[in-house]
Amino acid sequence: MAEKFMSMQNLKFTLNSRQSRHREGAGDILNGHTPKTMDMVFKAALDIGNKIMHPMFEEMDRTPPALEKGEVKVHPGVRPMLDTLGRDGWISAPFPEQWDGENMPASLLHCINFIFASANYSAAVYGGLTMGAAKLLLSYGSEELQKRFLPEMLAGKWQGTMALTEPEAGSSLGDLVSSAVPAGEEGTYKITGEKIFISAGDHDGVDNVIHLMLARIQGAKPGVKGISLFAVPKFRIDDTGQLVPNDVTVTQVFHKLGYRGAPITGLQMGEKDDCLGYLVGEPHRGLVYMFQMMNNARLEVGMGATAIASAAYHSALDYCRTRCQGRPLTAPKGSYPVPIIHHPDVKRMLLLQRAVVEGSLSLILHCGMYEDIHAKDSGAKDCHLLLELLTPVAKTYPSEMGILSTSAAIQCFGGYGYCDDFPVEQHFRDMRIHPIHEGTTGIQAMDLLGRKLVMENGKTLALLKQEMADAMAAARSINFPDDIPGASPEQLADELEQALAMVEKTAMAMGAIAVEKGPEAFLADAALFLEMFGITVIAWQWLTMATAASKALAEANPKKKERRFLEGKLMVAGYFFTYELPKIQSLAATLEKSTQMTFTISENCFTD
Amino acid sequence: MAEKFMSMQNLKFTLNSRQSRHREGAGDILNGHTPKTMDMVFKAALDIGNKIMHPMFEEMDRTPPALEKGEVKVHPGVRPMLDTLGRDGWISAPFPEQWDGENMPASLLHCINFIFASANYSAAVYGGLTMGAAKLLLSYGSEELQKRFLPEMLAGKWQGTMALTEPEAGSSLGDLVSSAVPAGEEGTYKITGEKIFISAGDHDGVDNVIHLMLARIQGAKPGVKGISLFAVPKFRIDDTGQLVPNDVTVTQVFHKLGYRGAPITGLQMGEKDDCLGYLVGEPHRGLVYMFQMMNNARLEVGMGATAIASAAYHSALDYCRTRCQGRPLTAPKGSYPVPIIHHPDVKRMLLLQRAVVEGSLSLILHCGMYEDIHAKDSGAKDCHLLLELLTPVAKTYPSEMGILSTSAAIQCFGGYGYCDDFPVEQHFRDMRIHPIHEGTTGIQAMDLLGRKLVMENGKTLALLKQEMADAMAAARSINFPDDIPGASPEQLADELEQALAMVEKTAMAMGAIAVEKGPEAFLADAALFLEMFGITVIAWQWLTMATAASKALAEANPKKKERRFLEGKLMVAGYFFTYELPKIQSLAATLEKSTQMTFTISENCFTD
Repeated sequence: MAEKFMSMQNLKFTLNSRQSRHREGAGDILNGHTPKTMDMVFKAALDIGNKIMHPMFEEMDRTPPALEKGEVKVHPGVRPMLDTLGRDGWISAPFPEQWDGENMPASLLHCINFIFASANYSAAVYGGLTMGAAKLLLSYGSEELQKRFLPEMLAGKWQGTMALTEPEAGSSLGDLVSSAVPAGEEGTYKITGEKIFISAGDHDGVDNVIHLMLARIQGAKPGVKGISLFAVPKFRIDDTGQLVPNDVTVTQVFHKLGYRGAPITGLQMGEKDDCLGYLVGEPHRGLVYMFQMMNNARLEVGMGATAIASAAYHSALDYCRTRCQGRPLTAPKGSYPVPIIHHPDVKRMLLLQRAVVEGSLSLILHCGMYEDIHAKDSGAKDCHLLLELLTPVAKTYPSEMGILSTSAAIQCFGGYGYCDDFPVEQHFRDMRIHPIHEGTTGIQAMDLLGRKLVMENGKTLALLKQEMADAMAAARSINFPDDIPGASPEQLADELEQALAMVEKTAMAMGAIAVEKGPEAFLADAALFLEMFGITVIAWQWLTMATAASKALAEANPKKKERRFLEGKLMVAGYFFTYELPKIQSLAATLEKSTQMTFTISENCFTD
Repeated sequence: MAEKFMSMQNLKFTLNSRQSRHREGAGDILNGHTPKTMDMVFKAALDIGNKIMHPMFEEMDRTPPALEKGEVKVHPGVRPMLDTLGRDGWISAPFPEQWDGENMPASLLHCINFIFASANYSAAVYGGLTMGAAKLLLSYGSEELQKRFLPEMLAGKWQGTMALTEPEAGSSLGDLVSSAVPAGEEGTYKITGEKIFISAGDHDGVDNVIHLMLARIQGAKPGVKGISLFAVPKFRIDDTGQLVPNDVTVTQVFHKLGYRGAPITGLQMGEKDDCLGYLVGEPHRGLVYMFQMMNNARLEVGMGATAIASAAYHSALDYCRTRCQGRPLTAPKGSYPVPIIHHPDVKRMLLLQRAVVEGSLSLILHCGMYEDIHAKDSGAKDCHLLLELLTPVAKTYPSEMGILSTSAAIQCFGGYGYCDDFPVEQHFRDMRIHPIHEGTTGIQAMDLLGRKLVMENGKTLALLKQEMADAMAAARSINFPDDIPGASPEQLADELEQALAMVEKTAMAMGAIAVEKGPEAFLADAALFLEMFGITVIAWQWLTMATAASKALAEANPKKKERRFLEGKLMVAGYFFTYELPKIQSLAATLEKSTQMTFTISENCFTD
């Protein structure tokens, strides 16, 4: 498959254009990686994307997982793929040497995830889930649990999952009812419960599945503080070292709109009262532990959305360059149709897609940088706070805008985009899960406004403002070449400054509502605030990219291809500030005048 | 199936709340229909929706049309459905008595289309297409052609189609190459050509298919002025009165994202040089004739989108009322989860859906009123101009916003919305065709800005302003009861007035660009202008509904259920003016500052 799904040039540019005052003095946050070794890693990842994942992109969708005789059958390519990912160290990459890992920094892991997920989102999920579950065991599991589970998981032989959601506990996790009763041996419990929507919850591409599952130890408090974390295998190891069934039953495989290459399952634990689970860490701390995984999973969801939008964009770009239809309005009579990329409206749709894809990628890699600084120096608490603040945006902006971005990709194709002759209809379907899984947009919005923004007396926002101020200063210090079309970074900096002031003003006004009318009214329009905040954050990212591109153009005297890339960057930055950033004006107007009507309106008014 | 997909109460309210100065003195534009007879028609239509169309909604999607031995097999329910539609007069409804029709006015046809399409969009398309093709024959075909084709078409035995698109001529119709060569008998031609994306282009639910096909008579001018219209049957009638194959071959059935219950086909005409077509009307006037059908088809697409969004909304509403999850932030500890409709963010998503569905429905019925006035009195040219101006909006607003509306319906369901256990994922897929077929959003935008708005020296906009001014005056004359929560129609009128001024200012500024920089720059951002104009037009519709609801509340002393409905109307109007209308501020800002960058940017900057 020669189809292109991501731009390596853009990935490297984005990774290299990160700037932050917190990075200075943080040492080698890339754990010894050099541009050269990173290149090698990216090339190897792209090779897997090209040769293993992308070739089964469509087929995994057309032949989705099926439940047969109690086991989920997936595409036959899944097993060899996981073998390769395990053997070549892709699952163990972030682990210490003791586990055959190489301490790969978060930034690079995000890049790899981007490459894999743009090749085939469903395929990328299997290994990513196992890695996440394994990390959780590494952080909180006992040495014995680690020894029991990690080697096979990191080898790609056993699947890891996150088993949180229950039929009556989705967004409201505190209501979960799965239970655990001590089963004699310390740390071992009998587990009973039902879980739904468990990604890769069972499949025949592995020999075992290890569920990192939330349940309530008998007698524990109600709500989120009574939840513990367990490792619950599909097959447990008995006294003789044999794998024996652990009473985990697959109740269903969900038939989904998209993301059909990965099985999302319903599970029943302990139907025959013979399901053992192993406590991970201390009792009742399950949700705290899980949040380590969940926060990372949220960034991964954002990256998954970004990657899908990237693949759709590259399909659309290719089509728009080759499909001839119509002509400029001023073309002489009898002239031939032109490639549709010449039409302004088509360019606009391509610019939208690039703005979303590249802006989202930039933000998530920026988050990765904060992760890496914090991992290097646990005293760099500011980076952790910034990460906390930005995670709801990094999850939601790519997910929500990804729907519009892949929809624009379809529109570029016209009627063909609606047909499965081209991959964009699948991208559109694959995208739609992202505003839902790992915390819906509504949950992210409440997290941002109700929690992250008010943490430590608003310190998070102060830190972000400092970062943005640095970015503006850098933009203003550039000697922008006269011969480059479009807005200068200095001008964009001024616009970002105004936008930030507008966000702050709105946040203050909402804070006043909290005092006056209580938390429910305060959070009623949180989704709109998240949208407004998110657009502004992405504008900041575009400013940093425009600054880096301008610098390279002014200083490096780039060759023609590189010059076009850099000028293209400035062009998309100009698009973002002209077409996307102004949206905050409307959002501010709405938030100002809404009077929390969604809070006050009676649900009785929704008559038939 | 007890599932609800549309609100009869709302449909009647909307139909009855139309106001226009052009209606006064126009006489009985409903051709003798009374509230009572309309009621009967609607009930009968709903009965067909409930008993015939909706029960096969999912199954038609799961078992899409397939090409077998040269013929397209569709769901076995299609034939009996078309028999019923034919027998009971639903296809002949708008025709004169001579054809067993009842001169049904456009307003009512739109209502019926809404009911059918909300029950099952794909199912509703078959009869609608035949009706449209038959109308074209009635308007422009010879008496002989009418006699030959109409009886079987109106009986639902023969399918009608619009055969326009070719592989190299989609949006750019003027490039079509299908050809017609005189074949002896007057008006009879040998047809050769390839057509794609032909809805219901072939299927086994009928005995014959009549294609209303565009082709170029040998020697005709290039471009749109050399195109003629032909009736090309799948089986022609030979001298002995027998149906014989007419050399129309089905080359493919497209596999689509949604709208899968209806076959979209590729066709080859005249492969064996034995395809006869019959000229409809005069030579070279084909596109003019086709536009009669196309304009109506555009309103039907808008209504289809509205109807799908309606069905998704009713599914979501039902779920949100019954699904318990979470609790108000201020709920006492240990309280039970509440139905999710209590959460402000969920209410917001439901309000969005209602705002889109009911606003769109209102606009299309308003267009229907203009059609009816014009049909009654061909001197009512102003109504025709208003219809021309509003058609791109009535097609595009429901289609584009329908994507967001059905997406919000999915979001209301959380993870379940992504699964096919509930119908909303299908609604989301069915919706996505609407911004494409019958002229993409880009085409509609150029039509609005480049053609409709500048028609007759801007008279169209002046007419619309007059209509809006009347609506504002009516709103301001209302004695709004104090005890009703929410904004008064008077206040909404003030906001609409400001919005309209903003639209005019933007239109003026764009006009200046046309003069200064030429047509290509003028139209570069037409899509944004269409969005801005569309939101304002829908705000006008919401104002008319808010006025009607206020009047009914103030004067009619309604019963509890009716009162709730009317208060709900005001609530959604409030939502629209608070959450949707402000979007024009951002659009105005972008249009003001864009400097037509999508026109000036070089496509070379889209590097890999």
